[in-house]
Amino acid sequence: MAALRTLGPRAAAALDEELMSTGAFSIDQLMELAGLSVAQAMYALSPPQKSPAILVACGPGNNGGDGLVAARHLHHFGYKPTMYFPKQTKNELYGRLVKQLQQLKVPFTDDFVGAAKGSDWIIDAIFGFSFSGEVREPFPGVIKALAESKIPVLAVDAPSSWNIDSGPPQDGPGQHYIPAALISLTAPKPLVKWFGGRHFVGGRFVSQEMADKYEFDVPPYKGSEQIVEVGSHGEKL
Amino acid sequence: MAALRTLGPRAAAALDEELMSTGAFSIDQLMELAGLSVAQAMYALSPPQKSPAILVACGPGNNGGDGLVAARHLHHFGYKPTMYFPKQTKNELYGRLVKQLQQLKVPFTDDFVGAAKGSDWIIDAIFGFSFSGEVREPFPGVIKALAESKIPVLAVDAPSSWNIDSGPPQDGPGQHYIPAALISLTAPKPLVKWFGGRHFVGGRFVSQEMADKYEFDVPPYKGSEQIVEVGSHGEKL
Repeated sequence: MAALRTLGPRAAAALDEELMSTGAFSIDQLMELAGLSVAQAMYALSPPQKSPAILVACGPGNNGGDGLVAARHLHHFGYKPTMYFPKQTKNELYGRLVKQLQQLKVPFTDDFVGAAKGSDWIIDAIFGFSFSGEVREPFPGVIKALAESKIPVLAVDAPSSWNIDSGPPQDGPGQHYIPAALISLTAPKPLVKWFGGRHFVGGRFVSQEMADKYEFDVPPYKGSEQIVEVGSHGEKL
Repeated sequence: MAALRTLGPRAAAALDEELMSTGAFSIDQLMELAGLSVAQAMYALSPPQKSPAILVACGPGNNGGDGLVAARHLHHFGYKPTMYFPKQTKNELYGRLVKQLQQLKVPFTDDFVGAAKGSDWIIDAIFGFSFSGEVREPFPGVIKALAESKIPVLAVDAPSSWNIDSGPPQDGPGQHYIPAALISLTAPKPLVKWFGGRHFVGGRFVSQEMADKYEFDVPPYKGSEQIVEVGSHGEKL
């Protein structure tokens, strides 16, 4: 079975832009569905009875927003999430997503390394498909900690620090990490060529027509499910 | 097993208000999760391979908005929904929800009775927990058609024309209908006392603390699921 076609960073950005302009979606809608699928992938990997403590690391952009939504759903599923969200902006939506977590008494920490020690899984929602170039402070220390840690990681859309097109950075050990699992949102990105772990696709809101236009495949979702597990490189299982 | 406690119309309105003020939720978020749960209840009742043609009747308020969202998810699940949405307002959100359906080429009809004839199931998203008093035009004819039809109906939160507290209206046959199935959003309403069909609860976004405050029960959701089937009156199955 051929792998699902991938969606490069420029096409992914154009698709997002189209969904929110002519598509008439609000970012609230898309992020809610994306974040729900992240939480459901976590559940498929390991339920809260087995791994209650989830550290959710959120970057300053939309990938971080997906992490904030995912954490709320994880709470409702019975997990005990802890948030690491060091670069909070004045963005109105993210402010509300944070407030929703605070109302559930989900704790926030500034100490990623310390919080990681007590965690069963980590969700990497730091950088997504729009990442390129340099990992800025305070995230280099987080990537290093992920590289040195044995705690399994679920990466959202992209393992942070990986190049979306060309995969893991080439600057030696300790500069990147290998996640145990990945959830690709809408469609796998080209970096899945270098990925070898468990792989889900989520974000079930794109029509066949839109997939045709952007030259990717609607994932083989089953029934009314919001995620589907595929092979590491996007092969149908 | 005791039934889930019900949420009366005033408490349901106050809860919605609190979720969107101090709770910091947008209506986009809540409606997306509610509409998704409606579509997933439809799938649990009858998959698209068995019942592709779903007529979704939407009223002018939030119940209708839930129906608009549900129809989009039904499309992605493989159904062929048709929309009856006769009282479209200038509300910006509903305008976007309609546009999202139009982009999927979901048809809209003005002829409820004609469209019902070719349907396998009907979703009643006409009136929800804020309904009281009189059924206004053009909906009396729709209620009459539902009462006379043998096509099974999934009602969203309340069978339209039923009183939220006191159940089916007392004005004789043909003035109300009995749905085959009901999905209660957040919590069952008092009218479930008069309901005898399959019953789901959806809208998984309320904390235990909030449920305690409004004196209802968080439904017994399983795993990462967004709906749970309960007994007709809300008993745990």
